[in-house]
Amino acid sequence: MTRFPSITDLRTACNNRPNGDEDAAQAATARQAVLTKPPGSLGRLEEAAIRLARWQGREKPALERVHVLIFAGSHGVTARGVSAFPAEVTAQMVANFSAGGAAINQLAKQSGAILIVTPLEIERPTADFTQAPAMDEADFLTAVQTGFDAVPEGADLISLGEMGIGNTTAAAALAAALFGGRGADWVGRGTGVDDAGLSRKAEAVDAALACHGEALSDPLEALRRVGGRELAAMFGAALSARQKRIPLLLDGFVCGAAVAPLARLGEDGLAHAIAGHVSAEPGHRKLLAELGLKPLLDLDMRLGEGSGACLAINILRGALACHNGMATFAEAGVSDG
Amino acid sequence: MTRFPSITDLRTACNNRPNGDEDAAQAATARQAVLTKPPGSLGRLEEAAIRLARWQGREKPALERVHVLIFAGSHGVTARGVSAFPAEVTAQMVANFSAGGAAINQLAKQSGAILIVTPLEIERPTADFTQAPAMDEADFLTAVQTGFDAVPEGADLISLGEMGIGNTTAAAALAAALFGGRGADWVGRGTGVDDAGLSRKAEAVDAALACHGEALSDPLEALRRVGGRELAAMFGAALSARQKRIPLLLDGFVCGAAVAPLARLGEDGLAHAIAGHVSAEPGHRKLLAELGLKPLLDLDMRLGEGSGACLAINILRGALACHNGMATFAEAGVSDG
Repeated sequence: MTRFPSITDLRTACNNRPNGDEDAAQAATARQAVLTKPPGSLGRLEEAAIRLARWQGREKPALERVHVLIFAGSHGVTARGVSAFPAEVTAQMVANFSAGGAAINQLAKQSGAILIVTPLEIERPTADFTQAPAMDEADFLTAVQTGFDAVPEGADLISLGEMGIGNTTAAAALAAALFGGRGADWVGRGTGVDDAGLSRKAEAVDAALACHGEALSDPLEALRRVGGRELAAMFGAALSARQKRIPLLLDGFVCGAAVAPLARLGEDGLAHAIAGHVSAEPGHRKLLAELGLKPLLDLDMRLGEGSGACLAINILRGALACHNGMATFAEAGVSDG
Repeated sequence: MTRFPSITDLRTACNNRPNGDEDAAQAATARQAVLTKPPGSLGRLEEAAIRLARWQGREKPALERVHVLIFAGSHGVTARGVSAFPAEVTAQMVANFSAGGAAINQLAKQSGAILIVTPLEIERPTADFTQAPAMDEADFLTAVQTGFDAVPEGADLISLGEMGIGNTTAAAALAAALFGGRGADWVGRGTGVDDAGLSRKAEAVDAALACHGEALSDPLEALRRVGGRELAAMFGAALSARQKRIPLLLDGFVCGAAVAPLARLGEDGLAHAIAGHVSAEPGHRKLLAELGLKPLLDLDMRLGEGSGACLAINILRGALACHNGMATFAEAGVSDG
């Protein structure tokens, strides 16, 4: 069992990045070329099938065991007036997840996925990162470990998501730390702040950048100092999926920022990831461009909860239905052009 | 039973356009506002749920009876070398549909839809429309009627698609007739023609525009003269869905061009339609802009067969899963901001 007693251990684990299975990817590519359709005419469905083949290590991938992992955390930075909703909504929404009433409950069911919600000490907010690190090292490592351990061996796909009032401000601070720019370059309206709230978000990010300074140049330190527990857990889950060679489906801005340190620690750190969607939060499109990821969906969604990724599971199912089920030109007696 | 013994009868039917149910749409809009999410945060899923409510005439729409209707036709214009595949592929692919080996078979199954494939005299190609009308009036009306009759009363959604080697050239000619421009403005590589093939497509469209001249200014005449049987059938199905107040899901360029005469005959002629996707065929994006339709998916697909629309059924299912299944703020005890 992989353990992270120290940040050094975590850093070592991040450098252990198994590659995908190129033989499986090549076999899947060859299969796509003989299915009864003009070459390339299924567009991004073909790419997706091949990527799933690469990371599942088989020519014909499956999506039987799909886990939607949602992590929830509370944020000290909410004291800065950065959200349109009060901080207690995080706990209320976790209760709504348990009762089955949230969007992600419906979407997980509709997409045939197993939903697992993990609250991370939501009664104990992280520190206000404009003044101090959000988490101390022990706290941070516990959150990463929780996410890491949430990924089961043998899953066919891990789809990530989060809940945490205030966490688009954390994501903006983390994106600025990792990719440069100021608060105004990365913040958006989140759950729906007004202009004054938007200014407060930008100011909070700028204050965090000033407070932590050079320490943010290390991606893991940036995640610990200006992230949050649910971001650390998503990072841990993404790392775990890579080590277990399980394809990873990403949700919106907060999810993207949380896993971005993997790409900063090694160029191919997110090679196993698929961007489920691009959200209406403006920083997300920019972040995906930095990560070199092209989203499957673009539906003006900005809910979080893993909702955009979960919807994209359907697209992956469509891709595999074609990839695994179609006849070849030879089987169907169709002229191949 | 609605019959079209003459083009005049068809024109009269096109002017009979029942409206959607605004009470149901308003009830659905009000419901969206109290579900446990920030207002608007499900983006286009909210719009889609409301549109389905409007055209199904109920606050909580359903997608139990979803029919994927695929029409196939053969085109005389293939003699002009406008396709990368030989004309006999149309019949071969219809056989592949029957045997269950095509992409649309897999996607219809995956999306929980009923697939019905209707070949339209594929052994008898339409006339080469660069020299004569593709169909005489009787032939045209038979194809429209076939499409009209294929839409069952009480369906929850009609999703359209087609197969017909050469039909992106017909679609380009029809788009040029309806919206202006020349061949080069509307043709694309279809199933994968090379540069010479692309030039032949543009020349064929220009020859058709020159041959039919002013007659193309009437949308129904344009469909008859430069369309094809599967295009006329999709048009008939779209008209039938409107008269039966059933929401309509559109596929790619050929499908969009086929139903576009409805929008030219009356500004709200496609009010019941949802664009399932935008294809890689460049004319499609332009056509959707002309029609004022925003696609749900943009995945570089260019297969036809109704594949993009069928994939989008999943998005509509996600939209309704949320719309019908989520808890309200009051039910869940969540603060609404």
